[in-house]
Amino acid sequence: MSERKYSVFIDNVGSCIDRYCPAYGRKYSIKEKFDRVKSIPLLTAVDIVLTPEFINEKERIRENLTRTGLKAASIAVDTFADPVFQKGSFASVNPTVRDLAIERAKEAIDFARSIDCNIVTTWPGQDGFDYIFQADYIKERTLFQDAMSELCDYAPDMQITMEYKIKEPRTHCYISTVGNALLMCEAVGKKNLGIALDYGHAALGYESPAESVAICKMYGDRLKHIHINDNYRLWDDDMIIGTVHTLEFVEFIYWLRRTGYNGYMTLDQFPYREDGREAIAESAEWLNYLETIIDKADIEEIHAVIAKNDAIEASRLMRKLLSGV
Amino acid sequence: MSERKYSVFIDNVGSCIDRYCPAYGRKYSIKEKFDRVKSIPLLTAVDIVLTPEFINEKERIRENLTRTGLKAASIAVDTFADPVFQKGSFASVNPTVRDLAIERAKEAIDFARSIDCNIVTTWPGQDGFDYIFQADYIKERTLFQDAMSELCDYAPDMQITMEYKIKEPRTHCYISTVGNALLMCEAVGKKNLGIALDYGHAALGYESPAESVAICKMYGDRLKHIHINDNYRLWDDDMIIGTVHTLEFVEFIYWLRRTGYNGYMTLDQFPYREDGREAIAESAEWLNYLETIIDKADIEEIHAVIAKNDAIEASRLMRKLLSGV
Amino acid sequence: MSERKYSVFIDNVGSCIDRYCPAYGRKYSIKEKFDRVKSIPLLTAVDIVLTPEFINEKERIRENLTRTGLKAASIAVDTFADPVFQKGSFASVNPTVRDLAIERAKEAIDFARSIDCNIVTTWPGQDGFDYIFQADYIKERTLFQDAMSELCDYAPDMQITMEYKIKEPRTHCYISTVGNALLMCEAVGKKNLGIALDYGHAALGYESPAESVAICKMYGDRLKHIHINDNYRLWDDDMIIGTVHTLEFVEFIYWLRRTGYNGYMTLDQFPYREDGREAIAESAEWLNYLETIIDKADIEEIHAVIAKNDAIEASRLMRKLLSGV
Amino acid sequence: MSERKYSVFIDNVGSCIDRYCPAYGRKYSIKEKFDRVKSIPLLTAVDIVLTPEFINEKERIRENLTRTGLKAASIAVDTFADPVFQKGSFASVNPTVRDLAIERAKEAIDFARSIDCNIVTTWPGQDGFDYIFQADYIKERTLFQDAMSELCDYAPDMQITMEYKIKEPRTHCYISTVGNALLMCEAVGKKNLGIALDYGHAALGYESPAESVAICKMYGDRLKHIHINDNYRLWDDDMIIGTVHTLEFVEFIYWLRRTGYNGYMTLDQFPYREDGREAIAESAEWLNYLETIIDKADIEEIHAVIAKNDAIEASRLMRKLLSGV
Repeated sequence: MSERKYSVFIDNVGSCIDRYCPAYGRKYSIKEKFDRVKSIPLLTAVDIVLTPEFINEKERIRENLTRTGLKAASIAVDTFADPVFQKGSFASVNPTVRDLAIERAKEAIDFARSIDCNIVTTWPGQDGFDYIFQADYIKERTLFQDAMSELCDYAPDMQITMEYKIKEPRTHCYISTVGNALLMCEAVGKKNLGIALDYGHAALGYESPAESVAICKMYGDRLKHIHINDNYRLWDDDMIIGTVHTLEFVEFIYWLRRTGYNGYMTLDQFPYREDGREAIAESAEWLNYLETIIDKADIEEIHAVIAKNDAIEASRLMRKLLSGV
Repeated sequence: MSERKYSVFIDNVGSCIDRYCPAYGRKYSIKEKFDRVKSIPLLTAVDIVLTPEFINEKERIRENLTRTGLKAASIAVDTFADPVFQKGSFASVNPTVRDLAIERAKEAIDFARSIDCNIVTTWPGQDGFDYIFQADYIKERTLFQDAMSELCDYAPDMQITMEYKIKEPRTHCYISTVGNALLMCEAVGKKNLGIALDYGHAALGYESPAESVAICKMYGDRLKHIHINDNYRLWDDDMIIGTVHTLEFVEFIYWLRRTGYNGYMTLDQFPYREDGREAIAESAEWLNYLETIIDKADIEEIHAVIAKNDAIEASRLMRKLLSGV
Repeated sequence: MSERKYSVFIDNVGSCIDRYCPAYGRKYSIKEKFDRVKSIPLLTAVDIVLTPEFINEKERIRENLTRTGLKAASIAVDTFADPVFQKGSFASVNPTVRDLAIERAKEAIDFARSIDCNIVTTWPGQDGFDYIFQADYIKERTLFQDAMSELCDYAPDMQITMEYKIKEPRTHCYISTVGNALLMCEAVGKKNLGIALDYGHAALGYESPAESVAICKMYGDRLKHIHINDNYRLWDDDMIIGTVHTLEFVEFIYWLRRTGYNGYMTLDQFPYREDGREAIAESAEWLNYLETIIDKADIEEIHAVIAKNDAIEASRLMRKLLSGV
Repeated sequence: MSERKYSVFIDNVGSCIDRYCPAYGRKYSIKEKFDRVKSIPLLTAVDIVLTPEFINEKERIRENLTRTGLKAASIAVDTFADPVFQKGSFASVNPTVRDLAIERAKEAIDFARSIDCNIVTTWPGQDGFDYIFQADYIKERTLFQDAMSELCDYAPDMQITMEYKIKEPRTHCYISTVGNALLMCEAVGKKNLGIALDYGHAALGYESPAESVAICKMYGDRLKHIHINDNYRLWDDDMIIGTVHTLEFVEFIYWLRRTGYNGYMTLDQFPYREDGREAIAESAEWLNYLETIIDKADIEEIHAVIAKNDAIEASRLMRKLLSGV
């Protein structure tokens, strides 16, 4: 059996909001959130976004990591919850805002290093545009590129990752697809710039997530972090994994192992109507079940089927993986 | 020139939230919102959702209507901002919650009547499901149907409308498409049950909004209210109208006139990164411009082109409508 | 174990074309196609579209049915392979074309009755429009409605079904969604007008196919025929079933049984790059496997989970159905 | 006024097929097709795919070019009409098939050079996969990469372009998005490898085509050819341009000019139900009209609006561009 390294965005065990409803459930304290994560079997780490709630609570985060024994899988910069970034962060044409984004990223880097975490995630969801004739694409991409370069130089010992997503909150985001994200890596040209692949974002962009893993491997071995959740392909529904796309997760796991990914799988959901802890526990069970399918499979047989490049053989394999016969 | 009857959801001139950012801008008081609407040329009315902010401020609403001279185009029941409805409202399997939704709807009806407004809008965004094996579709639809029937009987002098939308906040909503909504009207069998057609929702469901207008006309003349905004078809982006789908709005306006719609056009946007007042003023200008295209057009020529059922003729007509030649 | 009633569109075991490639494989004779279907375990029937290839071969069809012992699950009218219908069939504004469509449908009805088949399928894929300002929606829908009425009156002993699809070949088809199709049934008002639900078409229109089954039950018990295939939701990919949406098929089967559907499940695929017989045999195996999941399940437990209306319980149930624990 | 350089895929003025209908219209001879193109105002060139119909008619093509005075904007390799490529071409795991694709590409290169055309287009629509567990993504992408490298070395004086498309005919194509295509250019590392940007393909992949132009400029100035058509974003509908996305074409033209693109705009449509010549003539008129909007605009004003990065200003600009005020 392959080792399980599962983490969760700590706020996932709290309560959600959406654009209509400012509070679906009660607030949980930082301590409560750590306790809720700790109580979920299979989870051994957390990811933390340094939102306004967390940014001045670094000491408390440290204490709770120690207290619970949870590791930090990644520290993420907040460039989406603080409204100062509403029109962009690393690509902002407002120098004050852009400087602040870079400063916050450096703060996240420093904090991550201080807690023995070497992955820092950026999700530049506000770097993009909504309307045509609204953006100078070349200027803003260049600003983004330069910001990534600066962050990579600031901390050559750390992995700086970009999480791509084709849309939301902007109707169009700059770091949109796996190809676009890897192209940015090439343009920046630093070894410590990598990709945080969110399974649901890949599916939303009509990618086959397993193929995206392979592409990251080919072009610089850039895959450094994984977020995982499920959706109906047309929106980032952030659902319990396995409940919509069962077999595609199995192929995803196969390719992660084949390409030697050994980082965390971070659960990243928005359980609007469910208890967050319960919804995350379900996903951990699902992920473990789907990994077990690959644990039990004859890997050589899978290689052999793929080498045949044949839909009928692939279909038979899928049924066999699920049913055992 | 055709008469312009433009309204706006009053909260559109306030500030937005999204699921990541709890406040994109500052709060505006009720008085400020009315003043901001009043200051926009072309607008003569407001739509108000009886959210927690407004539900106990009916007297203040009345005063502000009088003070500003704005009309109420429609009063909408809140079944999406109050978290009590997070798992459903009129279709809720929880009788307490369902009773509350019906009670709130009756309260909205009473209030609307008291301010000389005869349109009450329901947008049952939480009546639906997220996961497979989660819902008893027949039971919940029956509950919904019975609730609509009860509301129609409660106020035969009022138009009760259902605003359909294929998804969001639920991944799947029951009142999803124009066909589904009209089928519900047929099943309920009351004359005062109708449709509130949101242009963006229609586009999101891959409908041609002009065709949806025609369908509403055919099956019981059920179109009672219009919400208007633009999007990129794959999500309810709630943008300034005309900025994505220019010509489809022109066809929409043509079919509204042809089918004798004479209600309000209510602007309904989420200007996350813009000043709400400015974004709504822009849409009003756009709508007026697009209506002017039809004002100036030779309607008999449009009829004649449509009668030919020919793509080439339709294309020429579109270019002529835009360019004037 | 539930009885299996599996059919296939006979041309599925032949060769495909697409809009770029006029022949992906060799032609098969009618006899060969029957032999190929007969050789697939689990299949006991065929569906036949009366395309130009088959329309004058009724005697040969009869002989082959007798020879192979296969039943006819449904006879379908061709309104899409013959280019005479390129701009519409039952809704055509050209009376000669529309009359021909109705005549062909009556011919299909007569032939079906003569071979003891009481289901006739219409798939009005060309009844719709491509461009805005191209169609008189009310006039064409009325023409369609009247044609269906005429067909229902022509053969009260037969089930006339409409297969809905949101697009393709037209960019917009009139009989687009389950709601729209049922609304047409209501408007026509005949008992023998029903729905042919294509699983892939439902998925393409962002329907939950299980919910669509339930809706057909509620509004007149109109579900008379099922086509089955898989896709990636954004296009009618017509793939081997189960390979993309595994669990949604399980829910679909559950709702078919719960609502008492006892007709055929007709496999309907476009195996462009595969041997047609092999691709269909795979789908039959998948369908049998997915039905076996429901055969083995505790149906009372499924009912109980659904009654709870709880995502967590639904998720657990799905994993249990797949894994057995 | 900017120079107009409009071309058309010569088969667009012939007749279409789709997967249901093997012939929507009559066949046209090569001579007839040239005459039909020649008769369309504004067109000065053709693009020709060396399909089975054309591949042995090179002399006749030459004669017709001379006779009509039309230029060749690009010669395209056929890797999609000949069924030998049904499972792949440049990425095929079958060495015989892959060698044939490369040989055909070299034949296209030689022919193009012989008629003073220096753009050769590859559209690797069959290089991809349909099912999960069907493809060895790394192996096949490497095969593709090596093939492109070989072609670039074969003809350093020619521009070899890749036309990207996210899907169709495969459910997933390897050269899927602008980012993915440019990443392939980087990996191949040859100066004469470039992009053929199909407006409709970009829209299908949820790209903003104007942004894609800018990205091509930034990363190696790789944009070498343009195909143009319109669609409803969810499928490659290949419609008359301007009929769905009016303003996005205007922004696209602005960015083409701003980035110094001076190649042809090749019309590329599938007018299933229209006369091909008429449908292409319409698109040429539309394109000219949309270019005229930019001809007349104050370019400095557009630059200034974009520099402001403001949705409201962008919206006003759009309305002004359309209406003139």
